Formats: sequence, structure tokens, C-alpha cells
Amino acid sequence: MMTRPLTLHPDRLFPADPTTRAIARTLYAQVADLPIVSPHGHVDPSWFSSDAPWTDATSLLLAPDHYLFRMLYSQGLDLDRLGIARRGGVVPDTDPRAAWRLFAEHYPLFRGTPSRLWLDHVFAEVFGIDVALEAATADLYYDLIGEALATEAFRPRALFERFRIDFLATTEGAQDDLAHHASIRASDWQGRIVTTYRPDGVIDVEHEQFAGAMERFAELTGEDVHEWRGYLAAHAKRRAAFRAMGATATDHGHPTAQTANLSTAECESLFARIVGGTWSAADAELFRAQMLTEMARMSVEDGMVMQIHPGSFRNHNAGLFASHGRDKGADIPMRTDYVSALKPMLDVVGTERDLTIILFTLDESSYARELAPLAGHYPCLKLGPAWWFHDSPEGMRRFREMTTETAGFYNTVGFNDDTRAFLSIPARHDVARRVDCAFLARLVAEHRLEDWEAADLAVELTSGLVRRAYRIA
Amino acid sequence: MMTRPLTLHPDRLFPADPTTRAIARTLYAQVADLPIVSPHGHVDPSWFSSDAPWTDATSLLLAPDHYLFRMLYSQGLDLDRLGIARRGGVVPDTDPRAAWRLFAEHYPLFRGTPSRLWLDHVFAEVFGIDVALEAATADLYYDLIGEALATEAFRPRALFERFRIDFLATTEGAQDDLAHHASIRASDWQGRIVTTYRPDGVIDVEHEQFAGAMERFAELTGEDVHEWRGYLAAHAKRRAAFRAMGATATDHGHPTAQTANLSTAECESLFARIVGGTWSAADAELFRAQMLTEMARMSVEDGMVMQIHPGSFRNHNAGLFASHGRDKGADIPMRTDYVSALKPMLDVVGTERDLTIILFTLDESSYARELAPLAGHYPCLKLGPAWWFHDSPEGMRRFREMTTETAGFYNTVGFNDDTRAFLSIPARHDVARRVDCAFLARLVAEHRLEDWEAADLAVELTSGLVRRAYRIA
Amino acid sequence: MMTRPLTLHPDRLFPADPTTRAIARTLYAQVADLPIVSPHGHVDPSWFSSDAPWTDATSLLLAPDHYLFRMLYSQGLDLDRLGIARRGGVVPDTDPRAAWRLFAEHYPLFRGTPSRLWLDHVFAEVFGIDVALEAATADLYYDLIGEALATEAFRPRALFERFRIDFLATTEGAQDDLAHHASIRASDWQGRIVTTYRPDGVIDVEHEQFAGAMERFAELTGEDVHEWRGYLAAHAKRRAAFRAMGATATDHGHPTAQTANLSTAECESLFARIVGGTWSAADAELFRAQMLTEMARMSVEDGMVMQIHPGSFRNHNAGLFASHGRDKGADIPMRTDYVSALKPMLDVVGTERDLTIILFTLDESSYARELAPLAGHYPCLKLGPAWWFHDSPEGMRRFREMTTETAGFYNTVGFNDDTRAFLSIPARHDVARRVDCAFLARLVAEHRLEDWEAADLAVELTSGLVRRAYRIA
Repeated sequence: MMTRPLTLHPDRLFPADPTTRAIARTLYAQVADLPIVSPHGHVDPSWFSSDAPWTDATSLLLAPDHYLFRMLYSQGLDLDRLGIARRGGVVPDTDPRAAWRLFAEHYPLFRGTPSRLWLDHVFAEVFGIDVALEAATADLYYDLIGEALATEAFRPRALFERFRIDFLATTEGAQDDLAHHASIRASDWQGRIVTTYRPDGVIDVEHEQFAGAMERFAELTGEDVHEWRGYLAAHAKRRAAFRAMGATATDHGHPTAQTANLSTAECESLFARIVGGTWSAADAELFRAQMLTEMARMSVEDGMVMQIHPGSFRNHNAGLFASHGRDKGADIPMRTDYVSALKPMLDVVGTERDLTIILFTLDESSYARELAPLAGHYPCLKLGPAWWFHDSPEGMRRFREMTTETAGFYNTVGFNDDTRAFLSIPARHDVARRVDCAFLARLVAEHRLEDWEAADLAVELTSGLVRRAYRIA
Repeated sequence: MMTRPLTLHPDRLFPADPTTRAIARTLYAQVADLPIVSPHGHVDPSWFSSDAPWTDATSLLLAPDHYLFRMLYSQGLDLDRLGIARRGGVVPDTDPRAAWRLFAEHYPLFRGTPSRLWLDHVFAEVFGIDVALEAATADLYYDLIGEALATEAFRPRALFERFRIDFLATTEGAQDDLAHHASIRASDWQGRIVTTYRPDGVIDVEHEQFAGAMERFAELTGEDVHEWRGYLAAHAKRRAAFRAMGATATDHGHPTAQTANLSTAECESLFARIVGGTWSAADAELFRAQMLTEMARMSVEDGMVMQIHPGSFRNHNAGLFASHGRDKGADIPMRTDYVSALKPMLDVVGTERDLTIILFTLDESSYARELAPLAGHYPCLKLGPAWWFHDSPEGMRRFREMTTETAGFYNTVGFNDDTRAFLSIPARHDVARRVDCAFLARLVAEHRLEDWEAADLAVELTSGLVRRAYRIA
Repeated sequence: MMTRPLTLHPDRLFPADPTTRAIARTLYAQVADLPIVSPHGHVDPSWFSSDAPWTDATSLLLAPDHYLFRMLYSQGLDLDRLGIARRGGVVPDTDPRAAWRLFAEHYPLFRGTPSRLWLDHVFAEVFGIDVALEAATADLYYDLIGEALATEAFRPRALFERFRIDFLATTEGAQDDLAHHASIRASDWQGRIVTTYRPDGVIDVEHEQFAGAMERFAELTGEDVHEWRGYLAAHAKRRAAFRAMGATATDHGHPTAQTANLSTAECESLFARIVGGTWSAADAELFRAQMLTEMARMSVEDGMVMQIHPGSFRNHNAGLFASHGRDKGADIPMRTDYVSALKPMLDVVGTERDLTIILFTLDESSYARELAPLAGHYPCLKLGPAWWFHDSPEGMRRFREMTTETAGFYNTVGFNDDTRAFLSIPARHDVARRVDCAFLARLVAEHRLEDWEAADLAVELTSGLVRRAYRIA
């Protein structure tokens, strides 16, 4: 079989100019092996409570990765043939090896995308494969990966240790009982995996499972969650429960960044419409808006860092939503305003010095125009890293180019991998470290920064900022 | 006479870094001489039906090129002195040689613009001129170009062959009888020139010539175009007639990308207002919106590729519109939403796999935020190349940098010259090939792509993608 | 004491690629020492009428610079400890040396920001300091700067001459009596310092000092400024008075770029609501909009160049506004529309050839989409340089990359320092010259421009364009 080699070039992602590249290389050498701090992501905690082996390449690497199947779908491939679950979790009766072959055959679609960088890193570094993925090597890959996964060394906990992850935050809904986290903490395993409080399910009345989530929210807290005061008390209880499972942060994924500053009477009246089922779309938005302010108030009290991830039009493809449900690669970013949207909340908590609110965006036009000026002024605001579609070499470069001059480096918070693809975590952090070192190297090469400052900053961007921002000891 | 040399450097538009430049050079060598495929543009088909010689530099190169006279006008030059036609086509009594001299004298205004790159290419490559254009060489240019145009070698068909154009699509209105195309096809000349169905004139009720266009539309189809069903039938007939003249695509130049998904009853009622003259501005917009969905439905039936070119505020300069009419360089891009705007249409045809809708934009902020995520998901959507003001080295570079990581290369469709300036077609394709090779070279130099992959992609971006997207055999 | 050296590298801000850097160096050598033309800024004219010595580093360099204290505030520092005045001008009882130490200790916050570049230039070039600012050198800096300021050579007029400033425009409100300018002109000192007409205070009825400004406006003009005709006459008188103090330009800092084109009757009715105190927020906006058109009309008459600086949400931080008032680094840019907003004014004056309106933006997404196409068409429109948050190396680079291909270089107007930080003026112009030379060098290196053209343009961007645009002899 004629195959092509798979190699990860040691200088990948560094600028070609020899002066700049040499500086980037030196900077990277200092941070390449620092432990991974992953303060925000979506890894499944059950993997680490059970430590059960994964079974095959398709179910581990392909089926859960919406970056992969959205691209394959965009080129006309049938999701059933890729083994992607239909609505309600029904998995099509697809041979996983056949799905993998289909993926391998279409691997050129990923040229120039971060998925390609991450996957090649997983193949080469995690599995030690030395030939490139293509139709001709699909079976070889499938077999090698399957065999590896059957070994002790590829169990979740073993990989966690091998990846030298110092801290990993998952994300759970307010209605989650955190059983897997409790089980991890009760075990004798020392891996530091914590949860994050994501209350969207009990805040977004437009979510189709709102009623069920509220029911569970009531059960878990014993509060009357259909009354405004009780509803807030339930949040307070659950926040405490999440903190007990190590959480240092909350996360909020609203369609917009809108906040509100209503009186208690207005809140009560609005909430009555929400739980009474008489709400309008404007009420739903206003309620989400008010809840960001309420969450900020609670963060002032309990010290949890608040993350706001706005701007995604979820489930844009009506046909696919009908057949396959949520999270199938059909979420599309929207233009997102921060300046007017955040003001009501900032009027309440803007000058707090012990509060940290981390802002993310899918709308890069807001980086230089809104986000950097906001974070470069308000004590409570920090900028999250380039997110989702922008978590990529060009996206990260634009993030630094468009935010640094106004917000500086110290109003940013290091890298988030924000992934459910556990095996790709080292790859993602490696890309971020390389891109940051490349950016710093350019500043040094252009005499905008001294070399010793860049060395200091490389460590800050990898380790210092994330630990301080997310309050990680 | 002291003149400066005019030379086209073989490495133009390649990055200065020697490693990257060498890679770009190698890639470019493989595509530099590939035949031109021009799937969208505005060349006048009568040139090729009559094959009459062009007469002079001013009427061929200056007067029809709004890129040129908009810049000259912006610096206070009188359009009359440049020989630009007034409203109603009245050509001012201007000596074309004097107009050319005025242009030559102001040629420095074009420094740093793509017009400068295209024109120098036309002067050097098409006419073989070896001194730079400036006041001192204006007459020399005027004479040389005039003499060349009088020869057989500079007749339209001869140049078409010399340029090695494999496929050229022009654009005609629904009310056009396609006589020139019929005449080209009836001739013994083998040049492949086809039409494109552009029905804006019978869809945009706000266009001042809507009534006349509708009349002609009725004549050509024999349908009752003032009744909804007959109006749709007329479109179907004309689409078939355009396909008979080689058309593989339709084109839609609306102010926004808004689409709609109305019931038949709503369509009938709306259409009654449109043809009854009782429409509001909102009706006009809604009708355009609904017609995009109707055109998409017809494309599912007849296989024509649909192009959407939204976002231009036409005829922004009221004074100039009064004196000189349309298409005088006074069209200004607007912020353009795609995410909400396209949803009604996508709810109808979004999951079709045999439909191709090519999206263009004048709002680069939509590249990474909206267009790449849409095209990287929906099977029917593809991204058109950098358009109009962005059809330029920096514009093309930004297009690749902001779309590739999310949409990949394979959801793009190669280059469009979109021009009426026939002589500049080789120059425009050359710029696109160079900029794409420069982008690929950077990915290779940064070890984000293998060299053999880049070589494959260079050919795809030049030839493969455009042929497949526009269904060109 | 272990200190680090402070050096300004001669190649700073030039690209690392040796070919490009060499070209940039050559271009820069031709413009590095050209006199400074500063057509727009906020330097205090009283410094030059009194020529009194400045006293210390804190009050001169730190306290008035909102770029500095906004960053320090964003990191939780107390403004009182930095000596920043509270609302009503009450200066906290802070030891200026202690404030300086606090600043020095936090100097790393400015890494990667233009403030760092400007300050290092001031320290090294203006004060001749050769060690870097840090906690350990805070006192050394404070003492050296204090000693220097006590000498004749550091008096305002002496520095003005040392900086080789050929022209400096300050900005005064319509209600300002211009006494300092009169005094400068009456003195035997030859420095060319002129005013700029900024009538926002008597146009923006939402400004808390509108009533007082109107009173003063009436006193200074003797007109009945509460009647529409008298109000316009007052503007005309004050514009003449400003021209007598050398003004060649007006300046307008509105929240949006909205203009209007009302009839006289509508103007009178609107103005009655404005001065009668019965206005709504929409009236306030409409009045500002109409006044841009009125100012444009007056500019056609009197030849003053009009500058529009829209898009800042002023005093965003409610808590800080309450405690510290305006201009405390809490102004945040907003998305800004130009295409629809400017049309009413352009319908009136758009085709004027002797009018110059210079457009600025805080919304970079408008560069390529709206501003370059507008300036590349309308004879009266020019593009101001990268402004405020974008007055930075990356911001200036993006400005050139996003505007040049459509508007060319000749529809831009050179550099504005727009600063009240007088000592940083040479630093700011130096950064602009270097970044422009770097941009030109790339065009030369990529064979998009000849070297002699770039040399010509470097001088134009430094000197020619600004003098012609602002009508400076």
C-alpha cells in the first residue's frame, strides 16, 4: 500500500520569516510542556467516574464532533451513513467501520481547518500513527485506534494523566444532580475535574425542555421555583452545590448579550408570565436578560466567575432539527451588540472589583470596537479567548491583533478549549500556545516588546492569566 | 521624452519572505496557464455576435469602467470631460483623446488599487506597451491602443481565443430576447459564451423600468404576467429559454438577502398589490424576498445554480443620479444580514443536495460570522469569491483568512471576474491565482498544509471548484 | 539598583522580513524629520499663552491621559490613588510621587499597547532617560522629569519648537471666547497654533451643560440664539471669529453619523422644542442630524473643512460618571452606520467640489464596506486616519489594508494625533510615519507599487495630504 507520511512539524504555526520564527521557537520552548489548565469545556464527566474504555474511532472521534459532521453534511453526505444519532438519540444502524471509511475518504475537506490540525495531532501524538489518513489507510486507522482503546493506557483517567491536565472544568445544567462529579471526588483518583454552573435550561423558557428542567430544579432544591423568591433561592442552593463539586464559574449561553435591570415588582410580574405560560418572545428575552443581572449579583456574593457566551442562532436548519434535534452543527453566529446590551447589568455591578465576568463573542467585529474598550475599562470585565468558529489559528491571531492594543494582555484570560472531544485537548492547547508565541514573536521582531517581556507573557498567557481569572489555586 | 518603464514583475503579489515566495512561485507555475473559466460577468455579448473592432482607448477602457471614473469623480473631475454618458445615454461632446489625457494625468490616483494592477496588465500583456502611463505618455498610449484595435488580432473573437477563455457567462435580464447569444450560437465560431438568467428587472418593482420590463416579459412568454400563476409560468419559460442559450445559472442582485416563505394565498395577494401599483416599500421588499424562494424552488426543478448578490445601496448620489442615471460608481455597500434573512428560503430548500446557491457579500464582517458557518453546514450553500470592492489582493486574502477555517476550501467556488471590462479578464484571473497561491504558500510554510495538498488545491481553486459549482462540463 | 535599559530600536514597527524592512527603512529616512503638521487635537492652548512650566510627571503625563488611567482602573486600581480628579474637578489629596510609583509598578499592563510605545518615546527622546520604567526606577523617573520640567528648555513654547511643529490645531467649543488663542497671536512668539470650531456644546441638548453653553453663545454673538434664524446667525458669527483665530476646520462629535434634510418650517418647529425644553430623545438626535447639514451648508460658504467623529457611547459607566464625571475612559465605541445616515446631508452638498468633509470611525467594519466606497466616490468626502482606539500600529495597518484598494491614498488626509498629551505628539507622528512606511514597503516588496511611487507617497502621507485636506498653507 502506497501511503503518505504523517508528521507534525516542530515549527508548525510559526511565521515563515526566520527571525520571527526563531523567536517564536524560543518562546514556545518555555511553555510547550506546561500542565494544561482547562477552565471551560464540555467533556463528559461520566468517562472519569466510570473510567470505562472507549470502543472505537467512530464513536469516540467522529460521531460526537459537530465540527466534523457539519462539514461532511455541507458536502452532501448523509448523517445516517456517518452514524450520527437522530432526534431522541436513535443511533442509525450503521457499521462504524463503514462510517470511518467514509470520513477518511473525505478527509481532504478539512484542509485548512483547525479540525485537521487537531486530528492529526491526536493521530500522531496520542495514537502514534505515522501515515496520513486517507481512503487507503482508513482500515489501518480504525484497527490501530480500536486496539489502543482496548488497553489500560487509553482509559480516560490514564489519558487525563498522560495529557498532564492540572484542572478540567466540565459544564452541567442547573437541573443536573452532579452524580458523576460526586463519584469522581469520592474515588481515590486524584484528577482535578470540576463542574460549572450552566443554568440556561431553567432560564430559557423557549427551550423545549424548560418545563422538565424546572421540575427537576424544584426537586433538587426543595424550593418553590414557580415563585420569584423561591426561584432565586433555588439558584443560590444549586450554585452552592456546584461550588461543593469544585465549580469556580458559571456559564450563560444566551442568544444575545442583553441584560436588564428591573425592579423586584417587575421581576415578579415577568416571572409570573414565564412560569404561567403567558410569555411572549420579548418576555423570554427580557427574562434571560434579567437573569444575567441576577447571576452577576449572586457572583458578587459567592465569588463565582461568570462567563457569557452569546450570539448563536441555535438549530438554524429546520429540516435537520426535525430529523436530528439539537447540536448537529446547525448553530450559526449572529451580529452581537455588547455596548447597549450589557449596560443594565453594568449599571448594577460594573464597578465591583471582586467580580469577574468573562465575555465571549462569535462576532469578531466586536473585538476592537466593543469588547476591548469594555474590558480595557470596567474592573469586572475580562475577555474570553477566541471562541468556537474562531478557535483556530487565524481566529486567535485576529483576537490578539484586535484586542491587545486597547485591552492589553492582562484583561484576557488565557485559553479555553471548550470541547467535548477529550482526546483533542492537548492538540487544542498546543495550537493556542503556538499562535500566542507567534504573535508575541512578531511584537519582539518589530521591537514593540522586549524579549524578556515576551517570555514573561508567554507563561502568563498559558498559565498565569487563566489561573487568576478562574480563581484556580 | 523621459519615460518610466512598465514591467510586470514575475513575483508580483507573492509575499516577500523567500521561503513563502518560493512555494507560491511553484504553485503558481502549475496554474498560471490554465484556461480561463468565467462563470459570472457582464461582458456585452454583442461584441462577439458582431465581432466588430473596438475603436479607441477611451471608449473601450475608460468610459465603461465605473471603477475608474468613480475614483476620478471623487477627486473632483468632471464626468463630461471624461466622456461619460449622461442620463438617457447622451454622450458629451468630448474629444476621446482629451479624456484619455486627463485620465493619464491622474493615473497616480490608482496607486494601491486593483484597477492599477489590472490596467498595467492590459497595457503590458494585451497591448505590449513597455512604458508607464503618465501625462507624458498619454498620446503614445492612445495611438498605440487605437492602432492595435484596428487590427484583426484585436477583434473580440480573436482576443477571446488569445485569452484562452474556455467558458464565459454574460448576464441578461428576463426581458432580454437573447438575440446576440442566438447569433453567436448560430455562427460558425466555437467560443463558448453563455447567458445567465437575471430576473431583477421583473422582480424589483422599485426599479424605474419595471413596467416596461414586465411588458416585454409578457410578450416574450405569451403568459399573463399580471397574474401570480402566469407570472411564475413566465419565469419558468424564460429560464428554459436561457438554458437553451447555455445558461447554467441565475443571478439576483437585491438590496438585501431577505427571503420569505409565504403561502400561495399570501403570494397572490402580495402580487396583486405589486402589479396593481398599490404596493408599499415593505411590499416591494417582501416580494423580492418571496421571489428568491420561488427561484430556489425552480432551481430545484431545473438544476440552475442560483447566485445571490445582495447588499448594495444603488444610486446613493441623488445629484449624480439625476444628471447621469444608474451605474455611475455611486453604489455603496450596506451592512447585510444573512442568518435571519435566508432562513425562510432555507426552511424550504435548505436540505436539498442537488441545489446550489452561491452567496456573495459586500459586508466582509459576515465572512467569518455568518457566511462560512452557513456554507460549512447547509448542503445547498456555497460561498462566492470576494466581490466587487473586495475583488482585490487584500480583499481576496481576507476572504480566505476569514472563511477557510470554518467552510474549508471545498465550499467555495473559485473565482468570478464579474466584469464588463473584457480586456481585463486575464489580468483579473491572474491576480486571483496569485493571491490564492500566496495564501496556500503561507499555509505550507507554516506547516498547516502539505505541499502536495497545496498543489492539488491550487488547481481546484483555479479550475475544479468553478466547474463543479457552476455545472460546467 | 538593577535596572533594564530603555532603548528605541531604529527599526521598530518595521516588518521583520529583511527585504521589506530595508524598503521601509529607506522610505522612513525620507520622512522621519519632516516638520509635524497636527491639524486636529486637544492640546490646552493656555499652555502656550502663559508658557508656564509644567511641574511634575504625574500631573503632566498620568493624570490627564485617559488611555493610561482607564487601563489601570480596569485592573482594579483606585482612581483616587492615581490622583485623578473627581466630578467637579476636585483633585484627591494624593501624593503625586506615590501616584507615579503606582503607575510605574503597573507599567507591564501596557505591554502591546500604543501607550507603551508613546511613553517610551517620551521618556527616551524628550527626557533622555535610558533605563526602563518599573517599580525600581519610579523615583528616578519622577525626579528626572521634575528637574527637566523646571528648566527653560522644557517650557511649552520651547518644546513646541524643539518638536518642530509647523501647525497645531486645538479644539474649542462654540461658547469659548478664544482668549488664549488671542493671547498667543498677540504675543511675539511665532508658533502656529490655531483653533477648531467644535459646536457640540450648543447642538447637543442632551449634554448636561447645554443651557449654560447657549447662554454664553448668546452673549458672545449678541444674537437671539433661541430663535432658529438667530441661532444660525450666531453660528456664522462664531465660525468667523474662529477663522480669525486661524481655524480652517470644524469638528463634530455626535453619538451617530445621522444627518437630516428638513425644511425651514420643520427646522423652526424642531428648534422650538429643543430650546423650549419639550424635546424627546428622537428630537435631540434629529436636531444633531439637521445641524450637521447646516454646518455643511455653512462650510460651502466659508470654506471650513468639516470633521465628523461619530460613534462613541459617552460615559458608559454610570457609577464612575456619578463619582468622577465625563472623560474618564468610559467612552465605548458603537456600531456606526454611514450609508443611510449621511445620505440626507449628501443629498444637499454631496456633489460640491470645494467642500471637504472628513469622516472618522470607531467601527472598523465600516472601513471597507462603507467609508472607502463613499470617499472613493463623493468629491466632498475624505477619510480621516485611524481614530482613538484604532490610533495604533495594528489599527493603522488595518486602516490602510481596508481602505486603500477602494479609496486609494489620495482620498485620505494623513495623520491626526488627536491628543491632549502634548509631549507625546512627536511619538505619535513617528508611529504613524513608521506604520505607513511599513505598509508602503509591503506593496513595493510585493511589486504592487514602484519604489519611486512609494517614496512619493510616503511624503504625501506625512505632509502633502494633510496640508491640502485641511487647507494649511
